[in-house]
Amino acid sequence: MIQNGQLISLLEKSFSFWDKISDLEKAALMDNISDIRYEKGTCLSGSDDSCAGVFLIRSGTLRVYMLSEDGKDLTLFRLNPGEICILSASCVLKLIRFEVLIEAETECRILVANANFFSDLAARNVWVENFSYKVAAERFSDVMEAIQRIFFLSVDKRLANFLLEEIERNNTNVVPVTHEQIARYIGSAREVVSRTLKSFYVLGAVELSRGGIKIVDKKLLQSMSK
Amino acid sequence: MIQNGQLISLLEKSFSFWDKISDLEKAALMDNISDIRYEKGTCLSGSDDSCAGVFLIRSGTLRVYMLSEDGKDLTLFRLNPGEICILSASCVLKLIRFEVLIEAETECRILVANANFFSDLAARNVWVENFSYKVAAERFSDVMEAIQRIFFLSVDKRLANFLLEEIERNNTNVVPVTHEQIARYIGSAREVVSRTLKSFYVLGAVELSRGGIKIVDKKLLQSMSK
Repeated sequence: MIQNGQLISLLEKSFSFWDKISDLEKAALMDNISDIRYEKGTCLSGSDDSCAGVFLIRSGTLRVYMLSEDGKDLTLFRLNPGEICILSASCVLKLIRFEVLIEAETECRILVANANFFSDLAARNVWVENFSYKVAAERFSDVMEAIQRIFFLSVDKRLANFLLEEIERNNTNVVPVTHEQIARYIGSAREVVSRTLKSFYVLGAVELSRGGIKIVDKKLLQSMSK
Repeated sequence: MIQNGQLISLLEKSFSFWDKISDLEKAALMDNISDIRYEKGTCLSGSDDSCAGVFLIRSGTLRVYMLSEDGKDLTLFRLNPGEICILSASCVLKLIRFEVLIEAETECRILVANANFFSDLAARNVWVENFSYKVAAERFSDVMEAIQRIFFLSVDKRLANFLLEEIERNNTNVVPVTHEQIARYIGSAREVVSRTLKSFYVLGAVELSRGGIKIVDKKLLQSMSK
């Protein structure tokens, strides 16, 4: 469990409305926060009411995505430690009319603020409401970036960018994911990813194996990403 | 020119923060609003500073879209009379990190609030800032709908939906647009639109002519849109 002092300093840092709510509200908010560990792969988006709670990520990565009826998957953005997920509590934001899916991409440690409590607080206090909509606006910007990437970049550029980001993020030169997973991340089809990877291999940028994709010429990949 | 009384009642109705600002601020806001008529086809998004102003649409339709470097066009949403465009004043919203293009799709009459004035007001008054982010959240929802439509619906469904919306909107059974324009609106290519329209014609849903597309079997089109 998280210590009280540690929790207060985290909330103070993450919730910009902290000094705009009363001491009673602060105490109540703390009572309505759970410190939860999620296994990799857990689906965190709510059931029917779509109000799973406001998430403050302590460790791990969340992936926020959409799924079509026939299973097409579109990654909108990822959230990392220190970031807040408000789309998991769309009941807080009356003007957000859509729902997204959220999964723990790695094992995650998350502070979950009860959605109903948070929603009541936002209804009473304009600073809390404004904070919530501001977090949503940041995610709006993330989604617009995803659209630009997916609509306006060709598959080879998207793939090169993805591989570069992954080796940057994990600090290795091997990306241990399947072609199927890559297709999902970059909004394409497995066959297209396999074909494009093969062309990268022929050009000498990557090596392909069962374990994943090994980047052998980062500079070449960088020039292909532009 | 718009009459003062009419302007006040419009602002009162459209700006939910109206009773949260002082009388001085109300007067200053009114002084910083211009009533402008735009010709069809005018580009309304700002130049370098991307802060053209906050738009309150009195008549006409605005189209908000993105354009790739190689000219690919993606319609995000449209705005109609009574609606507010805040993405035309991204300087008001510090957390909005992207820019969009805005064009007058028809002749438009728009109340334009000076972006710098509005930005200062939002910085001083949390109700104004919150109002701005709430308007952005509505547009976020619009964009998510566009993504779902473009990513997850096949071209024939998108095309059927587009034609149905157009005849609904204009209250006729003829849609007087080129295949090129349709491709832009539904996020596809002209060739694909032409081919799909031909299949609609073969099925007996539409007739094609130089003047546009005539819907001859609305029910069939409706069944094809689902």
